[in-house]
Amino acid sequence: MAQDTTLHLTSTVEATSTVAVTLAESPVPAPAENEVIVRMEAAPINPSDLGTMFAGADTSTVRVEDGALGPVVRAELSEGAFKAAAPRLEQAIPLGNEGAGVVIDAGSSDAAQALIGKTVALRAGTYTQYRCIEAEFCLVLPDGTSPPEAASCFVNPLTALGMVETMKAEGHVALVHTAAASNLGQMLQKICLADGIDLVNIVRKPEQAALLQAIGAKHVCDTSEPDFESKLIEALAQTKATIGFDATGGGRLASDILAAMEGALSKGAGYSRYGSTVHKQVYLYGSLQLGATELRRTYGMAWGVGGWLLTNFMRGLDAEATQALMGRVASEIKTTFASDYTKVITMRDALALEEIAVYDKRATGEKYMITPYVG
Amino acid sequence: MAQDTTLHLTSTVEATSTVAVTLAESPVPAPAENEVIVRMEAAPINPSDLGTMFAGADTSTVRVEDGALGPVVRAELSEGAFKAAAPRLEQAIPLGNEGAGVVIDAGSSDAAQALIGKTVALRAGTYTQYRCIEAEFCLVLPDGTSPPEAASCFVNPLTALGMVETMKAEGHVALVHTAAASNLGQMLQKICLADGIDLVNIVRKPEQAALLQAIGAKHVCDTSEPDFESKLIEALAQTKATIGFDATGGGRLASDILAAMEGALSKGAGYSRYGSTVHKQVYLYGSLQLGATELRRTYGMAWGVGGWLLTNFMRGLDAEATQALMGRVASEIKTTFASDYTKVITMRDALALEEIAVYDKRATGEKYMITPYVG
Repeated sequence: MAQDTTLHLTSTVEATSTVAVTLAESPVPAPAENEVIVRMEAAPINPSDLGTMFAGADTSTVRVEDGALGPVVRAELSEGAFKAAAPRLEQAIPLGNEGAGVVIDAGSSDAAQALIGKTVALRAGTYTQYRCIEAEFCLVLPDGTSPPEAASCFVNPLTALGMVETMKAEGHVALVHTAAASNLGQMLQKICLADGIDLVNIVRKPEQAALLQAIGAKHVCDTSEPDFESKLIEALAQTKATIGFDATGGGRLASDILAAMEGALSKGAGYSRYGSTVHKQVYLYGSLQLGATELRRTYGMAWGVGGWLLTNFMRGLDAEATQALMGRVASEIKTTFASDYTKVITMRDALALEEIAVYDKRATGEKYMITPYVG
Repeated sequence: MAQDTTLHLTSTVEATSTVAVTLAESPVPAPAENEVIVRMEAAPINPSDLGTMFAGADTSTVRVEDGALGPVVRAELSEGAFKAAAPRLEQAIPLGNEGAGVVIDAGSSDAAQALIGKTVALRAGTYTQYRCIEAEFCLVLPDGTSPPEAASCFVNPLTALGMVETMKAEGHVALVHTAAASNLGQMLQKICLADGIDLVNIVRKPEQAALLQAIGAKHVCDTSEPDFESKLIEALAQTKATIGFDATGGGRLASDILAAMEGALSKGAGYSRYGSTVHKQVYLYGSLQLGATELRRTYGMAWGVGGWLLTNFMRGLDAEATQALMGRVASEIKTTFASDYTKVITMRDALALEEIAVYDKRATGEKYMITPYVG
């Protein structure tokens, strides 16, 4: 079943201080001994995809032109964004951090041949019709799993599992999560319920609280409620959570969480000029709020704030630990790690102004899936 | 040489939302088998002493009244400061975190007897004429060391050594220090020169830079210079410093240091959407600026900011490591760990408005020493 060429989505930062998102065509090689050819069928648009796609452009400047292979989306970069993008200047970067498809051809090795007909998930350059890839880089899903079900096997599932592993590795017994009603947040709640770990969910709206409670969440604190702070302290005191993962990044939420942790720890404690000696940690893993993080330092001296990045976390794992996490994702992809999408669009749709206007809003909870057809 | 009573300085948070700093008298017990009596002669006023002394009061409200044993200094607490001080309400807290004196009496044990006539340094409640203390809690200085020379054996020397130990323990090869012309900063520079460790000093004024250069500093960056940022990046690139210790706490300096570290790490590196994977760390060990810490997050995802407290660091050391650090302080107290003082005052002077107005300014570089005489 030879497939000579593939259409795929790329992003290029141009010398004119613009970024261009286009369809491109490239050859599909014959698979080498240990390689397979995957016909891609589903890939999500994650916030991390948007960062690569638009290179920090002001997307209000987006315009669409006609190109050789279809629409060309172009947007203006600010001086700062252009400077930051210098290392990728004039390189057509393949888009799509994760996705899934079906293996339609394979090299001669047993390992490659064994994948023919299987639904597999893979990483990097997934907004494409066909991918040639080493068999060992494919995550094989259980029979009966469709590619759309397997589209989001990496970013959210491994981030949720990584939070729990980080919590354990750093000696904490429970954790806090913000923007907790997201797909990722729901996965984290399901993991915590299955593993008997207490989770304090922070959301912004009553309907988000209801959604989490419906899947069994015991601790949900809503920032829109007037007694948010005291409820958070109470939940932290009950769970003894001393580590948090914050998706908002900017603003005061990380600082408020540390202050609430200190409040929970100091309940009934005696005078201590430098606060509790228990280490309190908040990791920022997203930037839903782009502004500065404001730390008020009202929580003693035993605290830390830092960046948390999935790829840095994974780099610290040995092969066995990685395998264990991936195996859990594959076997629970229809339950713990199931994702919801608000809309399915083609690659050509992804280059339409009216779709960009929706899927580029990173904090709305909209989650799009791309099917790699040109449409 | 029996000494029945001692006059000492105490601080009490009162139910009237005031803090009172006064002289108090207490008995000096006869030394038990392993105890000694130290006639205190010199104790510094550190920023950490001021925090306990005034309990966060607005010192513009300070007034002095006559008390039974001398002046009583009283200041108003804000609602926040009073609330924070609740656990110490109506307790007369002995002042002075460190100091030195001469052993004038001892219990019957050989260890205690061996200290008679020695200059020793000790911690906690040092603004006093006489202290009864376990012999093992005394740091014995080499013969020929005067108590004023030994007054500051703990806070600054152990903080400077602790920074270097933390740097090593967390896998960094060089470090950054702010407010670097302080007594502490000079100690740190001397340690680094002796141990062959590269140190990047950040100061605010040319005369501070000159002071550090005079003791051999190779890297001094002055925030008042127009090319501060590029010089800092250059120094960080040369030294490969990826950990910093910041005394200012509030404001943007910690964030600026992380950004400069990232700038140094990314020189000549290729495109990486999430920045360098090298972990960059800044610890806040002081609060010369009381406002919020502002983190701009322009340095990828591999970074951390946190509190650093000497007592928390020391708690993590075993007895042997503690002994090694203390031994170094004692043997180098006249060189590496020598301190300068701008004025020597008595305990009674410490209760005078005109002295408080000077020594309570924490960011001026004024460093007072108290001699425990009533004057």
